[in-house]
Amino acid sequence: MSERVRVGIAGLGTVGCGTVGLLRQNAALLKLRAGKDIEVTAVSARNKSKARSVDLSGIAWHDDPVKMADDVNVDIIVELMGGSEGAARELVSRALSNGKHVVTANKALIAHHGLELAKIAESKQVVLAFEAAVAGGIPIIGTLRDGLGANKFSRIAGILNGTCNYILTTMHKQGRDFSEVLKEAQDLGYAEADPSFDVDGIDTAHKLAIITSLAFGTPVNIEAIHCEGIRQVTCEDMKNANELGYVIKLLGITERNGEGVLQRVHPCLVRKDAPIGVIDGAFNAIHLEGNAVGRILIEGKGAGEGPTASSVVADILQIARGIYYKSFTVAATDMKPLPTASMDSIEKGCYLRFTVRDEAGVLADITSIFAREKISVQSLIQHSSTPQSPAQIIMTTHATKDSAMNKALKAVDALDSVIEATHKIRIEDL
Amino acid sequence: MSERVRVGIAGLGTVGCGTVGLLRQNAALLKLRAGKDIEVTAVSARNKSKARSVDLSGIAWHDDPVKMADDVNVDIIVELMGGSEGAARELVSRALSNGKHVVTANKALIAHHGLELAKIAESKQVVLAFEAAVAGGIPIIGTLRDGLGANKFSRIAGILNGTCNYILTTMHKQGRDFSEVLKEAQDLGYAEADPSFDVDGIDTAHKLAIITSLAFGTPVNIEAIHCEGIRQVTCEDMKNANELGYVIKLLGITERNGEGVLQRVHPCLVRKDAPIGVIDGAFNAIHLEGNAVGRILIEGKGAGEGPTASSVVADILQIARGIYYKSFTVAATDMKPLPTASMDSIEKGCYLRFTVRDEAGVLADITSIFAREKISVQSLIQHSSTPQSPAQIIMTTHATKDSAMNKALKAVDALDSVIEATHKIRIEDL
Repeated sequence: MSERVRVGIAGLGTVGCGTVGLLRQNAALLKLRAGKDIEVTAVSARNKSKARSVDLSGIAWHDDPVKMADDVNVDIIVELMGGSEGAARELVSRALSNGKHVVTANKALIAHHGLELAKIAESKQVVLAFEAAVAGGIPIIGTLRDGLGANKFSRIAGILNGTCNYILTTMHKQGRDFSEVLKEAQDLGYAEADPSFDVDGIDTAHKLAIITSLAFGTPVNIEAIHCEGIRQVTCEDMKNANELGYVIKLLGITERNGEGVLQRVHPCLVRKDAPIGVIDGAFNAIHLEGNAVGRILIEGKGAGEGPTASSVVADILQIARGIYYKSFTVAATDMKPLPTASMDSIEKGCYLRFTVRDEAGVLADITSIFAREKISVQSLIQHSSTPQSPAQIIMTTHATKDSAMNKALKAVDALDSVIEATHKIRIEDL
Repeated sequence: MSERVRVGIAGLGTVGCGTVGLLRQNAALLKLRAGKDIEVTAVSARNKSKARSVDLSGIAWHDDPVKMADDVNVDIIVELMGGSEGAARELVSRALSNGKHVVTANKALIAHHGLELAKIAESKQVVLAFEAAVAGGIPIIGTLRDGLGANKFSRIAGILNGTCNYILTTMHKQGRDFSEVLKEAQDLGYAEADPSFDVDGIDTAHKLAIITSLAFGTPVNIEAIHCEGIRQVTCEDMKNANELGYVIKLLGITERNGEGVLQRVHPCLVRKDAPIGVIDGAFNAIHLEGNAVGRILIEGKGAGEGPTASSVVADILQIARGIYYKSFTVAATDMKPLPTASMDSIEKGCYLRFTVRDEAGVLADITSIFAREKISVQSLIQHSSTPQSPAQIIMTTHATKDSAMNKALKAVDALDSVIEATHKIRIEDL
């Protein structure tokens, strides 16, 4: 690489323009830190004439982003178009094959085709970097690969979706319902018109799959993830959790146990004074456990122009310094699938909310079913019924296998006196 | 470098033996991640016959650690002896001059001679790495250099000394006095017999000086640090802070402003629900503010065998991968001193505890002095006197220049009705 490094950016939305802007704003500093100039020499986007926050004059324009892979004036391709197929996949694959480094913020692309793309990168001895694909401005990819690289990881748990954390935080603080807060978040532009990707946990699952791959040296396996979203969480659950000393967070959790690797995305009760319990609003946080370091937590903004551009430009900086590394730490050809552990391989306490008729014997019926399944009750709160609402029994249990809990709840929900499906949220000790 | 990398370790205390142990325990994993074997081929320590937790048979022994710098069977020297002068300095300097990479956990050495050593390393194109020198297992050096390398930093604030944080946390939770908790910490081995290095803020200052250098590209300047320790903090202050919604933490803070760089170490009131406010016991945490990423917090264990070995081995791993970087990010020859800003260049709110005679007019006297210095009162609590103790007035102020505050307090303390020097702790908004 010469005394300057030439960057081509495909995709000029918020993050693309933010990347151009940051490279300019911090140009002198970046030159000192990289030891050379970093220059944007080519760009591509769908609409050339759209008004943008950055001046693109003097920069080569490509109507077809994939053609940028052949541009001899580009050393690093920055892919910010998104989507796991089509132009994004073609551009990245072709650029790597042409011996160009690639920086991408595209989690869907890496979650679905990361291994195949890493193999191309390694065969050409170029870098495929994706720090911005997971948790925005939090440098979790580099931390897993480098800073904590000496550790055997046992569990990693993260708040990986700012939209969900914003919704849950607002429900908690304002005592409002999911649907109402979601609508407001959509009106404010914090949530998409189709919120499914966020609130059903799919976005969290994409990021978790990438984290798992780096932590355990296994090929990305998004299909193996047990995934539940936050639509079922009510503001009553929030209040009950608070009364018990907990908050509710959507976590992506990956852990290694005797059965193999277990990846799961679901709402969790976490202690409200735990470091991850105080992470509010649009912030992300990742809790890591390693056999040397113990536990570490990193918190920061998981999305948005500045934080995402921070990670994109950090990747560019490393490449400009001439640093070469393998995308998933372990060589792509050395990555080996591990068995997928069942949900039953973990035992967690549960929060349960029973909706029952206010009549004699209900509690006895429920607790005898639990006794039969050897489920041990930790705490119990009964809120008395009103003419408007039936009685609610709130229970937390000691660690219980998922299968035993599901069997017990099936029996409970079949009772005449139980008038709504019992609501279960697992407790995660962090 | 060959298909294996050969490590020589000088200093076989807790961290030295922990490093040997971790390299063995995670050997298979490290080989996958480094792409080669990492092998300890030489060691040195003061006492050869001392019983140690690791088997050293088959490893070359050097009575003189400095001789290890000439050992042709060593590629990386790991310096874990400590001390800013003597054998540690000689070994590191000689090893670098001989073209060997160096990994050290020695903060005093880097704080005093980092620039000179980095110049040698850069002239020989070898790595001088010191992740373990700051905040133990928290990968703050790599995060400043790589993961957040795209950012212009404005402020970095950290809990950098676990002993102080343990003492302050215990005082807060158990309502006990400094001297009593310090004695207990010494008995438990958490604090040194001579605690000055920790409790007077010197250890925090060493680490802060290194952080400043990496963040702002300036030569390490430990002399410029304004340093106050925690001996003056009382458990009454803790209770008052708690009543006002704060906890007291010893912070090392570095910030860039119009005057230059301001580095300071002193106790601070921080909101008790702030992410840094919940960091308890022996944990460290670092809050960073960058112009792209916004705010980031990293929390983890700042000392001890496992966390420190985690960072030492992470540095070894990076070198084994063939990754080359400059110690302070910016080339040592390009580092430029920046002016030292005065304490007056910041304006912070203050917590004040006045000890006064319980008589008419005291509060009027104090508040009129404050009015004269244009200091604005934010909140006020008066605890009535008892036969055993004089009256206490607790005040927090809005942001005030240090000079105005010091002038006002001098006048207040000269009042007849003020019977003890007024106690001041700054409020840091994090």
